[in-house]
Amino acid sequence: MDKGLLFIISGPAGSGKGTVVKSILKKHPEIKLSISMTTRQPRPIETPNVDYYFVTKEFFQDKIENNEMLEYADYNGNYYGTLKSEVFDSLENGRDVILEIEVDGAMQVKAANPEAITIMLTPPDSQTLESRLRGRGTETEENILKRLNKAKIEITFLPKYDYSVINEDGGADACADLIYSIMQAEHSKTVHTKSIIKKFE
Amino acid sequence: MDKGLLFIISGPAGSGKGTVVKSILKKHPEIKLSISMTTRQPRPIETPNVDYYFVTKEFFQDKIENNEMLEYADYNGNYYGTLKSEVFDSLENGRDVILEIEVDGAMQVKAANPEAITIMLTPPDSQTLESRLRGRGTETEENILKRLNKAKIEITFLPKYDYSVINEDGGADACADLIYSIMQAEHSKTVHTKSIIKKFE
Repeated sequence: MDKGLLFIISGPAGSGKGTVVKSILKKHPEIKLSISMTTRQPRPIETPNVDYYFVTKEFFQDKIENNEMLEYADYNGNYYGTLKSEVFDSLENGRDVILEIEVDGAMQVKAANPEAITIMLTPPDSQTLESRLRGRGTETEENILKRLNKAKIEITFLPKYDYSVINEDGGADACADLIYSIMQAEHSKTVHTKSIIKKFE
Repeated sequence: MDKGLLFIISGPAGSGKGTVVKSILKKHPEIKLSISMTTRQPRPIETPNVDYYFVTKEFFQDKIENNEMLEYADYNGNYYGTLKSEVFDSLENGRDVILEIEVDGAMQVKAANPEAITIMLTPPDSQTLESRLRGRGTETEENILKRLNKAKIEITFLPKYDYSVINEDGGADACADLIYSIMQAEHSKTVHTKSIIKKFE
């Protein structure tokens, strides 16, 4: 059986990453979405073991010390990260895995696993990005500018990604289809398919 | 305007390459199929300027001397090849170009144009290949074995291609869709899309 491939999808606030990834998984339930682990408290709308694995600091630190984390970060006093087993068990079983993580984590994973395929989702331009961030209407001007600035910095990392996909307004389904095309194309690379020549010996 | 990309599709006898390429062009008429030039006589079923550009030996030799050929070969006393203008004019105008050529020509074009994307179409296995070659029922045993041997040699070049696609029986449409996915994925590579970061400065 062929191994699965690891696809890392990053996208700044305003890229619509969550909706796009949901659309991919709905159309292609055979793909596994990696679930992150965190030490922060669950929010009321969150479902444990679906949105995150919620664990104690001791548990998380133990995993770090035993080299069981694929990537992790300390953010606002809480750990966030991905267990190696969460990703590699599925890959071994032939399932493709989507890892939906931020730029820092993506660069960590790509450095240690150069065979992973990195995709950045972006809004079409600065104006659309800003209007999407303002559109929520629930944040202070200071917060909006902070999020806008963070998103712009993240987008400067785009040339370090393998692929980029633009999410136009209302384009989540088209983005999902394009990302699925990228996944199929990667499986067709001869580095993965060259063993077929044995069938002609 | 973005430039088009050059896709080289090779496939041995029995790969169903002709049917697959026709299916791609029918679904996506915006893609240009490069037409080859030859000095051999047209066959009754062939349409000049559609199947080939039929030219004199003097004309072809002139193009070789003026460095106007992208690739060419001398086969059974006749020239076969591709004019640079046939490919590069369309690429400049933003159209993707499919070049349907044999392994030798594909390797020539890729060496001179490493940005070209190479795709090999194959039958699923040796048995299917042989039954497809015999299926025509019009050839001598000697000819069939010669074609079978040539096809097997061509398939050994597969690891030198970027992508490979398997054409199962009745799978021409699926192959066309997969090759179109590869074309879309190639356009999404950040080497082609990274200029979008200017829209966030």
